[in-house]
Amino acid sequence: MTISKFEKFEKFFKPKSIAVYGASKSFMRFGSFNTINLIIGGYKGKIYPIHPKYDTIMGLKAYKSILDIPDEVDMVCYVAPIKVLADKIMEEIGKKGVKNVIVVSAGADEIGNYEISRKLKNIVEKYNITMLGPNCIGLIVPKSKIYMSPMPIYHPPGNISIISQSGSVAAHILLGIKQIPFRLARVISVGNCLTTDLTDCLEALEDDPETKFIGLYIEGIRRGKKFIEVAKRVALKKPIVAIEIGQSEAGKRAALSHTAAISTPSNLFSHICHQTGIIQVENTIEWLNTLYAMSAVPLPKGPRVGVVTIGGGPGTLIADLCEKYGLKVPLLSEKTQEIIKNKYLPVTGSSKNPVDITFDTDWSNFFKNIPKTLLESGEVDAIIFYGIFSTNFWVKVMEDMPDHLKGDDLFKSDSLKEMESGMSELYHQNFRALRRMIKKYQIPVIMTGYNDRPIDDGVTLAREYGIPVFYPAEGAKIMANLWNYNKWKQSILKMESKI
Amino acid sequence: MTISKFEKFEKFFKPKSIAVYGASKSFMRFGSFNTINLIIGGYKGKIYPIHPKYDTIMGLKAYKSILDIPDEVDMVCYVAPIKVLADKIMEEIGKKGVKNVIVVSAGADEIGNYEISRKLKNIVEKYNITMLGPNCIGLIVPKSKIYMSPMPIYHPPGNISIISQSGSVAAHILLGIKQIPFRLARVISVGNCLTTDLTDCLEALEDDPETKFIGLYIEGIRRGKKFIEVAKRVALKKPIVAIEIGQSEAGKRAALSHTAAISTPSNLFSHICHQTGIIQVENTIEWLNTLYAMSAVPLPKGPRVGVVTIGGGPGTLIADLCEKYGLKVPLLSEKTQEIIKNKYLPVTGSSKNPVDITFDTDWSNFFKNIPKTLLESGEVDAIIFYGIFSTNFWVKVMEDMPDHLKGDDLFKSDSLKEMESGMSELYHQNFRALRRMIKKYQIPVIMTGYNDRPIDDGVTLAREYGIPVFYPAEGAKIMANLWNYNKWKQSILKMESKI
Repeated sequence: MTISKFEKFEKFFKPKSIAVYGASKSFMRFGSFNTINLIIGGYKGKIYPIHPKYDTIMGLKAYKSILDIPDEVDMVCYVAPIKVLADKIMEEIGKKGVKNVIVVSAGADEIGNYEISRKLKNIVEKYNITMLGPNCIGLIVPKSKIYMSPMPIYHPPGNISIISQSGSVAAHILLGIKQIPFRLARVISVGNCLTTDLTDCLEALEDDPETKFIGLYIEGIRRGKKFIEVAKRVALKKPIVAIEIGQSEAGKRAALSHTAAISTPSNLFSHICHQTGIIQVENTIEWLNTLYAMSAVPLPKGPRVGVVTIGGGPGTLIADLCEKYGLKVPLLSEKTQEIIKNKYLPVTGSSKNPVDITFDTDWSNFFKNIPKTLLESGEVDAIIFYGIFSTNFWVKVMEDMPDHLKGDDLFKSDSLKEMESGMSELYHQNFRALRRMIKKYQIPVIMTGYNDRPIDDGVTLAREYGIPVFYPAEGAKIMANLWNYNKWKQSILKMESKI
Repeated sequence: MTISKFEKFEKFFKPKSIAVYGASKSFMRFGSFNTINLIIGGYKGKIYPIHPKYDTIMGLKAYKSILDIPDEVDMVCYVAPIKVLADKIMEEIGKKGVKNVIVVSAGADEIGNYEISRKLKNIVEKYNITMLGPNCIGLIVPKSKIYMSPMPIYHPPGNISIISQSGSVAAHILLGIKQIPFRLARVISVGNCLTTDLTDCLEALEDDPETKFIGLYIEGIRRGKKFIEVAKRVALKKPIVAIEIGQSEAGKRAALSHTAAISTPSNLFSHICHQTGIIQVENTIEWLNTLYAMSAVPLPKGPRVGVVTIGGGPGTLIADLCEKYGLKVPLLSEKTQEIIKNKYLPVTGSSKNPVDITFDTDWSNFFKNIPKTLLESGEVDAIIFYGIFSTNFWVKVMEDMPDHLKGDDLFKSDSLKEMESGMSELYHQNFRALRRMIKKYQIPVIMTGYNDRPIDDGVTLAREYGIPVFYPAEGAKIMANLWNYNKWKQSILKMESKI
């Protein structure tokens, strides 16, 4: 009986106990960080620090060798000199019967120490160990409260999984997480890919019930044919969004000295993406935003976008970029335009698409009635809004208002506090209605604005109702990514149904 | 004697008194916003509200007509029905002798009311008035505390000026200002450009002593030949960064119904930029970031970039994108590599370029010694860093630490508070040194990271020392924009010196 890739990975995701090498009494050491975050992150299993000298580390009983631990060990995280691992420790780990090992330590292939890699590989194969690394960053599995990363950020579980050849990307993106509030199932850092590569991880996630969306950060693909076969199969079940780096001369040089990766020629990877339905993106922020959008809204069933805006300039920018990226912003039918114009627009507005409300005191036209009309019309496959604002910025302003103004009728009669709570209530109502419409019509709706994203309460509120918010240009690109994935998927399913 | 364009605009920038139409007793009216912000923003001149009914508005004496105001009026802001303006008010404004008028009200050409435009134009020409609009957003001049915009954000003065055909862009970008801390001289919203267009504004800013950098948000250029002539002349003195919208079918439709603009064909504008040295950007965020970077650091004198990183993945991404955008990331000489490798790198690091420090506890290698070596080497024209972090995230983490850990030796001996203040002190020292080096070598240095930008104190600190911080992909693009401008300027100056 063969064990599936997912079964081989399962103990990474749900280990009952973890042995850690490299944690010490000194704080500012790389070896300490992963263990500190594992503890503070709230991991509920057993943690066994292993150290040649100390009896306790970070309040935990320490062992001289893994062979001294009386109980079973499900997983090892190694952040100590790699030569010792190759010469002695990996053998002990094998003898202890541990099958899942993460080697954070660097200093092998990427700096020319091929002998170390050869030794490690032999032992790992002898004991049938699944090893991530060397030269990776650790592992993050929020549902199991495993935050084995040098960065002290612990965020809630979700259904997006990341496989990254760059450790810093895997670790540092979490720092920006407040700006991109997506939720993670697993972050797997593969480092030098000595015995486990991207393709292995992709196969493991294929059967992983917690993973619905997959992000790849690629420096170079090793087993091209196998990767294509696996990616194509997985992408039909779970969208894959990938960023590939290392195509330039300097990039190749960097990738080689970084994870000893031989980068794929750039065009080649674009071809692979085309074949496999992988959505290729240009930068890390777009990568994260696309995964976030996919996890938040349905996929568009066609390329037609309705743009709803409170400002002509941003609406035009979004329309331009939608068409640049392969979407369409169709002129609305006379009938739909009549409804919008007569019922929901001020005289200065435009109903053509972009639908530009210019200025209206009744926000329910903007946030509810106009999108409802669009969704019911059958003329659009997606909606992109421009214009979302904090509910309280006027209130904040009033705190700095000159005293003689505070007594003025204007600010007495129209209570600003009431305005704020009214605005907030309105947002709640409209976003709830919008959420219901997204569900009913299965059409994606996203919002865009220039707001300070981690701060603005309008943005926060929209996101709480499952409506993603981006910068305007990002919004257009992300919607195009969603459509490109679905277009590929539909074409494959259609082809298969004909066979 | 002819009056220069700048002289015609001067009263927009330094008016001693402003008459406002449209402010009322109701808060949630567009007509009230500009006046509220003018008052709260702290404008020191006289404000004269004009209203047919009320005696006071917002604590200020109101007048029935501008002709009733006993004193001189330097400028008018009009946010009331446009038909009344054309039929009666503009004539009164002319009679009062006001030469500078901003018409925020919409409802003319962009919705087909050409008659209104015709009337307005006649009166404006008769009285020799400089009019912005109709259908613009107001005006922002921080140095004069003029925040005549619907958005309640008042930020400090600087030397970047914006000319925008989109009012919402002009107003809303200020909402995101905390993420892009650049400082503004003037924000001019031109709207329908009835009698004053982009080119007029560009000419006015040419001689404006407060303006050093110019941003254009363009929906369509009307007097192409004149625009090219002016832009080329201005760009040699003051860098111009432009975003052009309205090239797609939907975009053209939107621009027409927005500011009645006939968009320029897309390729045409790229050609114009090529000729005139205007730096064309793709989206609003890149536009603002480029202006910010130009105002903060010197221009690169060549295309060679040194990338200094704490993470291989982001370093490789930056190197790739630099080369994609026309910069070079050259392999460093043996000599420079030796210095970096022997003195400032751990064994796992790479000195080739990207210079990857991987992990080092001594941040002064990263932030001071390595860039110093690069700057002194003469081998790079610019430096892009990856890796800047909050000084206090570990301290925050410790607050949530389990009690049994708080007593552990690790956290007693290495005081984290000390670590924080040490880190902060180190940042101050290194950023100060870096600032001095930028000045000495006149070479631009920017930093990149994935941090939450308006929150992170490492980012804030770097910016206080005049070192801009961006996302990694943004950083590469922005540096390319800076180099492209200087490359153009050098080529023109070289050509002219030969004549």
